[in-house]
Amino acid sequence: MNPLPFTHITFNDSLWRSRIETNRTQTIPHIYEQCKQTGRIDAWKWNQGEPNTPHVFWDSDVAKWMEAASYSLITTYQLQLDQQLDDIISMMSEAQMKDGYLNSHYLHVEPENRWTNLRDKHEMYCAGHLLEAAVAHHQATGKESMLNVLKRYVNHIDSQFGRGEGKRRGYCGHEEIELALIKLFRLTKEKRYLNLAQYFIEERGTQPHYYDLEARARGEDPSKYYFGGDYTYLQAHRPVREQTEVAGHAVRAMYLYSAMTDLARETNDESLLDVCKKLWRHLVSKRLYITGGLGSSSSNEGFTSDYDLPDESAYAETCAGIGLIFWASRMLNATGDSQYADVIERVLYNNVLSSVSLDGKLFAYVNPLASNGDHKRETWYSCACCPPNIARLLASVGNYFYSQTHSQTSEVSKTSEVLSVWIHLYAQSEARFENGLMIKQTTNYPHDGLITITMTPPTPARFKIHLRRPAWCESFVASVNGIVETSEVAHTAKTSEVLSGYIVIDREWQAGDTITLNFEMPIRFVYANPNARQMIGRVALQRGPVVYCVEGVDHDGLDVSRLVIKENGWEAEHRATVLGGVTVLKGKGGAISPNGWGDDLYRFASPRIDPITITAVPYSVWGNRGAGSMRVWLQRSYG
Amino acid sequence: MNPLPFTHITFNDSLWRSRIETNRTQTIPHIYEQCKQTGRIDAWKWNQGEPNTPHVFWDSDVAKWMEAASYSLITTYQLQLDQQLDDIISMMSEAQMKDGYLNSHYLHVEPENRWTNLRDKHEMYCAGHLLEAAVAHHQATGKESMLNVLKRYVNHIDSQFGRGEGKRRGYCGHEEIELALIKLFRLTKEKRYLNLAQYFIEERGTQPHYYDLEARARGEDPSKYYFGGDYTYLQAHRPVREQTEVAGHAVRAMYLYSAMTDLARETNDESLLDVCKKLWRHLVSKRLYITGGLGSSSSNEGFTSDYDLPDESAYAETCAGIGLIFWASRMLNATGDSQYADVIERVLYNNVLSSVSLDGKLFAYVNPLASNGDHKRETWYSCACCPPNIARLLASVGNYFYSQTHSQTSEVSKTSEVLSVWIHLYAQSEARFENGLMIKQTTNYPHDGLITITMTPPTPARFKIHLRRPAWCESFVASVNGIVETSEVAHTAKTSEVLSGYIVIDREWQAGDTITLNFEMPIRFVYANPNARQMIGRVALQRGPVVYCVEGVDHDGLDVSRLVIKENGWEAEHRATVLGGVTVLKGKGGAISPNGWGDDLYRFASPRIDPITITAVPYSVWGNRGAGSMRVWLQRSYG
Repeated sequence: MNPLPFTHITFNDSLWRSRIETNRTQTIPHIYEQCKQTGRIDAWKWNQGEPNTPHVFWDSDVAKWMEAASYSLITTYQLQLDQQLDDIISMMSEAQMKDGYLNSHYLHVEPENRWTNLRDKHEMYCAGHLLEAAVAHHQATGKESMLNVLKRYVNHIDSQFGRGEGKRRGYCGHEEIELALIKLFRLTKEKRYLNLAQYFIEERGTQPHYYDLEARARGEDPSKYYFGGDYTYLQAHRPVREQTEVAGHAVRAMYLYSAMTDLARETNDESLLDVCKKLWRHLVSKRLYITGGLGSSSSNEGFTSDYDLPDESAYAETCAGIGLIFWASRMLNATGDSQYADVIERVLYNNVLSSVSLDGKLFAYVNPLASNGDHKRETWYSCACCPPNIARLLASVGNYFYSQTHSQTSEVSKTSEVLSVWIHLYAQSEARFENGLMIKQTTNYPHDGLITITMTPPTPARFKIHLRRPAWCESFVASVNGIVETSEVAHTAKTSEVLSGYIVIDREWQAGDTITLNFEMPIRFVYANPNARQMIGRVALQRGPVVYCVEGVDHDGLDVSRLVIKENGWEAEHRATVLGGVTVLKGKGGAISPNGWGDDLYRFASPRIDPITITAVPYSVWGNRGAGSMRVWLQRSYG
Repeated sequence: MNPLPFTHITFNDSLWRSRIETNRTQTIPHIYEQCKQTGRIDAWKWNQGEPNTPHVFWDSDVAKWMEAASYSLITTYQLQLDQQLDDIISMMSEAQMKDGYLNSHYLHVEPENRWTNLRDKHEMYCAGHLLEAAVAHHQATGKESMLNVLKRYVNHIDSQFGRGEGKRRGYCGHEEIELALIKLFRLTKEKRYLNLAQYFIEERGTQPHYYDLEARARGEDPSKYYFGGDYTYLQAHRPVREQTEVAGHAVRAMYLYSAMTDLARETNDESLLDVCKKLWRHLVSKRLYITGGLGSSSSNEGFTSDYDLPDESAYAETCAGIGLIFWASRMLNATGDSQYADVIERVLYNNVLSSVSLDGKLFAYVNPLASNGDHKRETWYSCACCPPNIARLLASVGNYFYSQTHSQTSEVSKTSEVLSVWIHLYAQSEARFENGLMIKQTTNYPHDGLITITMTPPTPARFKIHLRRPAWCESFVASVNGIVETSEVAHTAKTSEVLSGYIVIDREWQAGDTITLNFEMPIRFVYANPNARQMIGRVALQRGPVVYCVEGVDHDGLDVSRLVIKENGWEAEHRATVLGGVTVLKGKGGAISPNGWGDDLYRFASPRIDPITITAVPYSVWGNRGAGSMRVWLQRSYG
């Protein structure tokens, strides 16, 4: 199955439509301005002695902005944006070396050193992002300008690296080019791009280790590497097929695993897909935050040990969450298993949405699950990977809602036939499939779980529709034209109609047929595996896909660490005008009182607990009302 | 009042006697070997091209070892140790420059740069430790050899720094020399050493800022300093008299405040003492761990924000705990207020004792209050400040047990008269005062709170004895020769006989008079101020001065994070042969079970709790039975 491209989907809901529009009107221009002011845009024509010396990974920031801008152009054409893209492409083209090389730092700052430090210097990472942008730009505008520049660059890279004679057996320390090359392969059908991606993936972590050799060639002792002689940080500690645990820098890991999944599909490599499944299972069973955040430590921007999920110091980088969506989407379309869509929904509605303010101009690099009031979103970062990453994700978020399978293109009709459709995520929207099928969702999701789906095939046709039954949902009813098709209540085994987490309806569809899905959406109290020590004695609130938090601002500014909750008597209230329209939760609890403690830091008498009404808001919108304390995992009532 | 020197006290207990003996027979030789092997001992005669290039603060490691060795010589003379000291002093003397300068790094590695970076390079810090060692060596052996070397060095420093014409207005980034100079002043009565200490203390943090000027003189931008333009790390963010919060690097802070307290006493400066009292109150009410550890963050090896006391990532450096004892002792003897002795007891029995293994050969640099099994003591550290610091502390631990006040020396008799004595800490021991008074404590303290004190004055004499009534004790009885003098039960106001936390008995003492103190020592459940978010919903166990922890090793290796306790039904059991002789606590609780979770990281059903008997051991001896999980602050039973 393949995703239905975002270009075929129109959102008519209050959440995604407004986020996409804010992204287009606020975020994308804001990032352009930041890139312009900091010298990133003009890095291609920088000269020695000028300010804003191009940094080695600046090109990737501009590239991700270009990709976001391209997606945005498809949805809403803007002449100025089109011209901004053309101007950058023109500078880039002029800067490109005759041999195709293209990196603004190495072109201008230290041309003698290019390709001498693949481990640390991000050259191919930048190339990969430029390539993704080039593919997007071509799809958005039909222009070949950027695509041609990048093909020349990729051809240069292909000439330098690989197993052929005279080539170096290197690969980039920060994975990215691999998945980009497969995008280029899919666009051009040119096998050598797939081959190059395959080489980069398969070469990774082999012995003799390229990063050892490369360090010695620079006159460095490999053991003086920041992480010693250990390349786990770069997922290069062993060949990728021998990797069984998600490890190292989380963004790098997600981009690698995404490319591995792509490669497994393109080469029908079940054993490589099994590696990906094993890595996935490790991630979701031991190293994933409830918000979908991942990579718990700032020290390596990545993974630590199993079940180590601190809340206040959680790194949970925005780019890692986005990378997880990339990977999960590939796994989903490779397998048809809803567990991958469950994770997309978890990370999208929580970790990813939390990373940008409601006004679209402030960005979180890290997404902790608790704050003492120190954390806030920023307008920009000197390491600015996250803002343009969220921009490209939001501009193309429709990619994750639907999938389809086609028959093989018939040589006679030259059209493909939709055999089957999948709805992974729910939101009020219209989807237009290539065969003319229209699917319309009418719903307030995620505020409630009632979804009406109107089917409009161009002509009556029999095909299967797969409707994801969310893992958070224990009771649901699915009807077609008012007649119950299948239902399930809490704690019963899956019925045969729910296949890999999808409710499958196989029938002849007529225009106007309606499916009604009613996913019960009670307030859920979530507990973490007792091996996750940081959540012992704590509970989180979730309703539908939305994970909640409590904020000081809703509790007279108190430090919400002092709240204790009881897991009963909670109610949901929709507030259309608050925080862009949210459902808040209200319940009873207590506030541990610091009154009467005076100067005492420790004492023998247990602290007093005062009753209080607790208000929880979606984690995704926290910190939009000034800095203050916040917490997802709340202390359970004790004593 | 002044402390009765450790040289006048003999321990006959199971705890201190064995720790001091292990320190003498194991730790001191072990540290010498480490210093020898790593080149520290021979740094004085190092030549270019040889291995083990002397590091800028190596001299301080050797100096602290020399101080420890000197104290040990006083208690138990060992010819070999005396000779080792002489050999080092001889090397040092030969290495010393004609002008008195003496730092093995700058002498040999970069002589052209001495005194160019007081902010970072520890030259005077090393000088201070050498000076403390010289004073100790003189007291131990009567020899002048090291003292003369150090006097020449100090005279050189005095000639270079100060407010006089041609002098630089510098001071060391790592405080230490200030308190050492006051030791030298007290030994020699030479006022200029006090004046120099006073200059260093008062100059600190004044404008124009010396570290700005000094950085510019090196051609550096002061704002490129690791902490930006902020000198809080060095307690040089403002003049010391304007400092109101303990801040920055914790060891530096303790050494500075110790010197400030000394200076206040020597100059009868009440306003400076008030500054110290304000800093003290801030520390103990907002930034001190229950174990007496301090400085919660590894990022600055120091203080963060109020009530920020994470347990697993607690830094609580060994040297900071030792520094706190130094400061608290000075405050205690300056004020006679038992709160300072309470803190000495807290840090000594918990943070400090935990920093060395029972066999005396493994050392903790940091002293976290929880561990996932990652933490263990090491044989040595490349930054080796802690091991010799614990050695010198243990070799002189008697310093903190007793104090005395004297009358002015009578010109006729030329002897001083003891007016009053203080017992701050309890342990089975004998103390010999200068007037011939012997005080003998017979007790199992800290295993129980019954203490029999036998008074043996040389002749019957009237004087006051002050017996510290520990802050942890809510009920006690004090008797003399079997007749109750004063008593108190929980929650009554202090009686007039308990002055500043001391039970004062003023009478004529005859040889053989016995005081019986019975401090009730129940198991206490300790709660932290609710502003300390990391301890919300948690409780610690304490009995007497001993803070407890639970270890995985006592619970079939389970992660003790999963334990929950109820605050009743606990019992103490003495185990003479376990962990050097400890009292363990046993109580009922639960273990949150990971059974039945399978691969789930999150679920909607609350985890099961299995009943379990929980065993707690003193925090000071944790990690002596292999690596494993440990926790001081335990989850209270919830639900």
